[in-house]
Amino acid sequence: MSIKIGILGYGNLSRGVESAIKQNDDLELVAVFTRRNPEGVKIKTEGVGVYSVDEIENFKDKIDVLVLGGGSATDLPEQTPKYAKLFNVIDSFDTHARIPEHFENVDKAAKEAGKVGIISIGWDPGLFSLLRMVSTAVLPEGNNYTFWGKGVSQGHSDAIRRIEGVVDARQYTIPVDAAVESVRNAENPTFTARQQHTRECFVVAEEGADLARIEKEIKEMPNYFEPYDTTVHFISKEELDKNHASLPHGGFVIRSGKTGFEKENSHIVEFNLKLDSNPEFTGSVIAAYARAAYKLNKEGASGAKTIFDIPVAYLSSKSAEELRKTLL
Amino acid sequence: MSIKIGILGYGNLSRGVESAIKQNDDLELVAVFTRRNPEGVKIKTEGVGVYSVDEIENFKDKIDVLVLGGGSATDLPEQTPKYAKLFNVIDSFDTHARIPEHFENVDKAAKEAGKVGIISIGWDPGLFSLLRMVSTAVLPEGNNYTFWGKGVSQGHSDAIRRIEGVVDARQYTIPVDAAVESVRNAENPTFTARQQHTRECFVVAEEGADLARIEKEIKEMPNYFEPYDTTVHFISKEELDKNHASLPHGGFVIRSGKTGFEKENSHIVEFNLKLDSNPEFTGSVIAAYARAAYKLNKEGASGAKTIFDIPVAYLSSKSAEELRKTLL
Repeated sequence: MSIKIGILGYGNLSRGVESAIKQNDDLELVAVFTRRNPEGVKIKTEGVGVYSVDEIENFKDKIDVLVLGGGSATDLPEQTPKYAKLFNVIDSFDTHARIPEHFENVDKAAKEAGKVGIISIGWDPGLFSLLRMVSTAVLPEGNNYTFWGKGVSQGHSDAIRRIEGVVDARQYTIPVDAAVESVRNAENPTFTARQQHTRECFVVAEEGADLARIEKEIKEMPNYFEPYDTTVHFISKEELDKNHASLPHGGFVIRSGKTGFEKENSHIVEFNLKLDSNPEFTGSVIAAYARAAYKLNKEGASGAKTIFDIPVAYLSSKSAEELRKTLL
Repeated sequence: MSIKIGILGYGNLSRGVESAIKQNDDLELVAVFTRRNPEGVKIKTEGVGVYSVDEIENFKDKIDVLVLGGGSATDLPEQTPKYAKLFNVIDSFDTHARIPEHFENVDKAAKEAGKVGIISIGWDPGLFSLLRMVSTAVLPEGNNYTFWGKGVSQGHSDAIRRIEGVVDARQYTIPVDAAVESVRNAENPTFTARQQHTRECFVVAEEGADLARIEKEIKEMPNYFEPYDTTVHFISKEELDKNHASLPHGGFVIRSGKTGFEKENSHIVEFNLKLDSNPEFTGSVIAAYARAAYKLNKEGASGAKTIFDIPVAYLSSKSAEELRKTLL
């Protein structure tokens, strides 16, 4: 008997979840819900319906876990607590500063309904958080470093697209080699944002647009680009579509710590991801934790959970005996 | 109030645990137990007693978690179940093939006594297992690779020491660069043992010993050296003590997996350790999981647990709220 999954929204991340479900025999996609006209949404999985979100309550007993594919700015703060009243839910909420508040809202709704709500799943927050937590507990005296890239930041690409005269854009976040090397050599450096990452932008401008003005607006954009060394390349729409269509990403979390009665020994713990497709990998993490949501709830658990609260055995379709035998 | 830790045995690993306890304010070493004459064992932590293992029962209510510092061949199969009847226990049992049997024995004893017994903690088995499990669940279609080194294998060093005419030895396990590169490039290779690691040995021989015979015996030793390209260097005791006194180690686990409806996207998940001191890092992992044993038992849990069964939040002295705020 498979675990029945619903997905709300059908953007890049939801497509990644759909693809991941297909790779897991014990997971079954049963419905995609949309706020648009369902007839305009064509999904890849044959035989699975697309429904208006207005119909979602009718699926109360037909879905084991609802995946929320929306964004952290406005969708998830409202949707995750709302749907935790009906379903076990999982989201990829990534506004770090608002996680405590989001957790409380989901926890309250999920507990009242006897459901499990897993929040902030993906790779950062998500697997990177897991590794930061474990390595900090193991090496209490040390420093954490997070590098992102080389890869496409969708948030930064969107920020460029909002500039007047810009048709399309891709922004790559790139770790600075010297910074990475210093961390891996256990030098325990401190960095400004500029010293740790650079930003490279490929921009398609409208015909006749003022390129100098666009470049200036990008480079001076507070928070997004101003604190970094930023390079801007203007290219054609054809070139963007040809060379920058995919959404690769990655990065690494490093804990640099010391042990010994005299702190004489250094240790480097690194977790490193190289991803051809950010949404498909993120979707794969979400699929595994959707399985965990189902298993936890089946055992009687309820309320909000994060990646810190869930034994990793719950991620697998294999039994605990099998896992001990093959992967320990 | 601190968590009271006892350690049975006082070899390299136990010293690493002792050092880790000193770095964690909420952990307190209260006793070291030995099968030797306690008066001959001098530990580093001031004010803490060394006792004969015959006295261990007297500490039943004075110790929250007993760390078993012994070896997997003969000590732990007997000791972990035995002491799980008296204490929450933790060990670093690393005979992969016998883990299911060891788990059952510890589980039975610990459940009867209402204690928690955490087995096979360290980095392999241990953190490497955790990463293998998570990344296999996230990327169900793919391959796992484990590389060890560059670092000192104590088992292989011991094997050389047992050869007639050998005074002392250090064996370094070294990953083959071309193999590592192929895996990181998502080529999904298959390897023989020889293609994945080489072995380099530094050997101090007795005066007048037959060096050619020793070298031959090393290189032809089944399982340990025969399946590998092995280099043997004969050096003086002084040189060994000067250049090969420390016990560095490390290695990395890589999951190479594919996603997408056409399996068109590759992903590389790598967990990498570079350790100046293998016993101190292993001891640090054990200290964090000793905290988890205490917390789990305090909440009413009992029985055997592995790294797959324990939410990582239990490793930390910080509250769940604090962890969500700072590390998620």
